[in-house]
Parts: sequence; C-alpha cells; structure tokens
Amino acid sequence: MNSDQISVVTGGAGFIGKNLVERLAASGQCVLIFDDLSRGGEDRITSLVENPLVQFRQVDCADPHAMSEALASVGGQAHTVWHLAANSDIPAGVADPRIDLHRTFQTTFGVLEFMRSAGANTLRFASSSAIYGPFGDVAIFEDIGPLAPISNYGAMKLASEAQINAAVEAFLPRAEVYRFPNVVGAPATHGVIFDFVNKLQKNPMELTVLGDGTQRKAYLHVHDLIGAMFHISKLDGRRLTFNIGPQDEGVTVRFIAETVRDKVSPAAAISYGEGRRGWVGDIPSFHYSVQKLVDSGWAPSRSSAETIVCAVDEIVESRLSV
Amino acid sequence: MNSDQISVVTGGAGFIGKNLVERLAASGQCVLIFDDLSRGGEDRITSLVENPLVQFRQVDCADPHAMSEALASVGGQAHTVWHLAANSDIPAGVADPRIDLHRTFQTTFGVLEFMRSAGANTLRFASSSAIYGPFGDVAIFEDIGPLAPISNYGAMKLASEAQINAAVEAFLPRAEVYRFPNVVGAPATHGVIFDFVNKLQKNPMELTVLGDGTQRKAYLHVHDLIGAMFHISKLDGRRLTFNIGPQDEGVTVRFIAETVRDKVSPAAAISYGEGRRGWVGDIPSFHYSVQKLVDSGWAPSRSSAETIVCAVDEIVESRLSV
Repeated sequence: MNSDQISVVTGGAGFIGKNLVERLAASGQCVLIFDDLSRGGEDRITSLVENPLVQFRQVDCADPHAMSEALASVGGQAHTVWHLAANSDIPAGVADPRIDLHRTFQTTFGVLEFMRSAGANTLRFASSSAIYGPFGDVAIFEDIGPLAPISNYGAMKLASEAQINAAVEAFLPRAEVYRFPNVVGAPATHGVIFDFVNKLQKNPMELTVLGDGTQRKAYLHVHDLIGAMFHISKLDGRRLTFNIGPQDEGVTVRFIAETVRDKVSPAAAISYGEGRRGWVGDIPSFHYSVQKLVDSGWAPSRSSAETIVCAVDEIVESRLSV
Repeated sequence: MNSDQISVVTGGAGFIGKNLVERLAASGQCVLIFDDLSRGGEDRITSLVENPLVQFRQVDCADPHAMSEALASVGGQAHTVWHLAANSDIPAGVADPRIDLHRTFQTTFGVLEFMRSAGANTLRFASSSAIYGPFGDVAIFEDIGPLAPISNYGAMKLASEAQINAAVEAFLPRAEVYRFPNVVGAPATHGVIFDFVNKLQKNPMELTVLGDGTQRKAYLHVHDLIGAMFHISKLDGRRLTFNIGPQDEGVTVRFIAETVRDKVSPAAAISYGEGRRGWVGDIPSFHYSVQKLVDSGWAPSRSSAETIVCAVDEIVESRLSV
C-alpha cells in the first residue's frame, strides 16, 4: 500500500467497522484497519483483507506509538481517521468502569495523539446517543443540555467528544462527530437482536426478555448509518456534530422479541420481566431529533420498525450460513 | 486518627485545598489529605498537619489502591471525599494533553474507584467553568448546551463530571459538583495575580501582559468559594450541580494589572500584547449565571473587583512574609 491518502479505520473488525471498510474499499480508497481484536473479529478481518486495498494491523488504539509504527510499516499518509474502536459491551462497562475508560475513552485519546504526530487532517468519530442521558419526553437535539450520561460508556463517549473539541482548538483541522443510537444489521456481534436469536437457538420454546418489554428505542440500519456519515463528510466546517437516527420514536422491545420469535421459532413463548429498565445505564425511552441532519439534506431509508425487520432477516440468514 | 467520619481532601496541598482543610479542621472534622505534591506544597502540608485533626499521605489520586492503603494506615471510615486534585497549570496541559488526562481526569476516575471500595457516601467535586466553552454573550447557566470545552483541562473536567454522573447511577449515594471560575486568595500558587506579582518583583519598572488587557473574567475569593460549597453541602438531593461565582460580569485583565502595579510597584509601566486571547484555551469573555445558587439562598460577599483588590493585598502580604 503506498497511497498518499490512507483512511484509517479503528475498530474495523467490529460490526460497523466491517461494513464501513467494505464501503470505503468499494469506492477505491486505501484502508488501514487498527483493531485489538479484544472482541474477536479475526474472521471478518480475514475476509476484509482479501481486498488488496485493505490492510490490517493488530494494535491497541490507546497506544499512539503502536499506531505510528503500524502506519510506518504500511507506508503512506493518514489523511482521515474513522474512529470506531470502543467497548461495545455496555453491561461489561457497568460492571468494571476500567473497560470503558480504556477501550472507549483512552482509545480516543490515543487516536488524537496519533493524528497529531501523523499530521492527519480529519477525525470522523462514532459517538453515541448515550452521551445525553435521560430527557424523558423532551426531544433531544444536538445542542441540548445538561449532558448527564448515566452509563460509563456514555460518560466515556462524552469525555471523548470533549477531548476532540479541545484538539480542534489546539491542532486538529477538522472533526466530525456522529451521535447515533442502536445500530443493527449483519454481521451482528452484540445487541438485542443478537441476544434474542442466541436465546431462541438455545431454547426454541421460550424467549425470556429483561424488563417488561415496553422500553422503546430508535434503531438505525448500518447501511443508513454509513450513508449519513458519508453525507456529513461532504459538508463544510471544522467541527460538525450530528445526531443520526430514524425519523420516528422507535420500537418497543416487545416488537423486537416478536419479530425475532416469528422468524426463528414461531412456537416459542415470550416471558417478560418487570420494570422498564433492562440494566443499569439503560434508558427506557427517549425522543431523538435528527432534524439538523434532515435539514442538511439527508434522511434514513428505513423506519425503526423496517430496520428491525430487515436486520432480523440479515442476522438470522448470516448465522444460518456460518 | 480514629474518627468514624473522616473527610478526605484530595489536592489538599494546593491553594484551595489548604484553605478548605483549615476550615474543615476548624469545625472539628478529621481530615485526611491526599496529594502527590507534583506542584509542591510541602510547606503548606507542614503547617496543616500541626493540627492533630489533620493527617497527610502522599499518594497519586489516579491510584485507588494507594488511597485505600493510605486510608487503612490512618484508620477510620471515609464518609466524604472533597476531590480538588487536578492539574492547575492550564497552559502546561495545552502543551501536553497527558498532564490533564492523568491529573485532572484519571484522579477523578481513581477517586471514584476508591470511594466504591471504601463505601464512601458523598463526593464533593471541584469542577470548572471551563467545561462550558465559549458562549459569547449568552448567559451560562447549569443546564446550557452544547458543552464544548476548548482546553484539555476543561475537557477532562467535563469527562470527570460525566464519570461521576455514571457513578451516581451505579453506586455512589451522592455527588455535589461545583463549577467555578477563577478563584483567588492566599497562598497563591498560580494564576494571573501570582504571575503579575512575580513579574514585578523581577522587574519593578515594567509589567508585560499577554493579550490586549480587555479580556474580562469573573473572580471569586477562596473564602466565598468555601462558603458556597458548605452551603450546597447542606441542600437535599443525590446529584447537585451549581455554578459558583460572583454576581457580576467580572473585571478586565487591565484592572488586575493596574491593581497589582499600584500595590507592588506604582512606578512600573504596563505594556500590553495584541488580541483578546492570552493562550490557547483561554476564553476572552463570558457571562456566568449564578442565579441557581442565589435562588438557593447564598450569595458571594464580594464582587469580582473587590475580590481582586482583596486577593492582591493578601498575596503580596503573604509573599512579603515568606
């Protein structure tokens, strides 16, 4: 690889990362993946590097020197870094805050140090709707306050955004911050659909659900997410921050459970727990405004419900084909 | 020391810490100071531990195990932690973000881990107006958004607040967050008055000022700050967040320079630089609302201007007496 314009993708072995790398390579870009493989993904890397435009180095993104050495080993200039590496297991981060400290925040800190020494131009950062915390029935737009995340994951995403903002002030030419809610599609590595499919494959007669099933969340398909990120990447500005999500109030856990059940094991009974929260840091419902994104000229192709139906099909089919 | 109710003060060797420890001990509380002495303060510790209610352990507050061992060596239960430890040299943090990462954020992370293992009840956290970033002529109240700090220091204070919020969700019974602007008084260890006095003691004929002197900032006297913190500590709630500051628009750097010049070396000429910003991350003016604090029944005893005049007197006198 010796292009002058390498796109670095951290967390490229993950679910969103794999989809992004495929899209970048399909558009002719040279891609260098950094991933510590702490959540697996060797199989996804194997398939990605079949494309000669894609290379992979196993590094911890909290270590800027390791990334600099890995870039030097490949050759070329890193113009853009898509920073997706983070802890994707929110309950694990609740049990041990050091997981989100390291994988969600210190990776961002390391990426910024790497970008400064590499003279890179643009950071594209996968932030999260979890930075907002609970707002009840108030619509969440980008400039709302106060920001009071209730999970360690959300806290460390907000910490990352703050550090990125200071970096733009100090040295970084441009940063794009994408705040998105639950993203689904194949290959699933975690998340509610993934969990429900697993449970039904273990026990085809019963699906147990945390909480009473009335929790409502917005879901975005990974293809829509990448479309939105590409759209934002073409807008002007030094600091761009956008909510990305569907234009609806989301779907309930009950809807997801029934969709998975109907697809995987129609005879299964669904049993619900009590209360609206599935785990500490889980927010039972929120209203996510993507008006700024829509005003900029982009809208998702699917509603939350259409996204869930599509993703359940994709996830079940990709698991059957393994 | 074997009280059941120890108040831990991190950063107790610093300027605000010393004043706080004196007030706590004067009210009969057992105080355990944690400080790494990275910015000095041995002399202040020596004077503080003359009071038998006060003990000191030199530890890095990013290391929860070191704090747990230090607490065990003293005996007793840590009910409350006043977390003041942070990097106080903002330009140093601009030059090397790792300084604020470690001293401003990882100390908070470490304190929370320490509090969880110690079963401590209440965190009282010294946050900063720097978490807000620039808002121009808009009044900054506690719930404003977006939060876009432009210094690494402000970013790591915001990161600390986010992590504290997640900790209250997960395990911490109560947290009080005090957001304050520039605090002055004796013994000064840093800050604009301290710098101006130093410059005039080196060269009594000239005082050079960064920027054009029109930067306007709010200043709070350390005694008013401690009064406000004690007031807030008596309010109900699990999460309390308050701006603390004077009820005015602040004073200009020119006013401070002239006040110091008149006190230290009336014959000195003052020469100004260009532009309104003194350094990267410095915000030329902002409007800080303390209405929530006033509505709760507390108001500062001095304006910004009165605070500066008082603090200049105290700092000059304390330096003459060294």
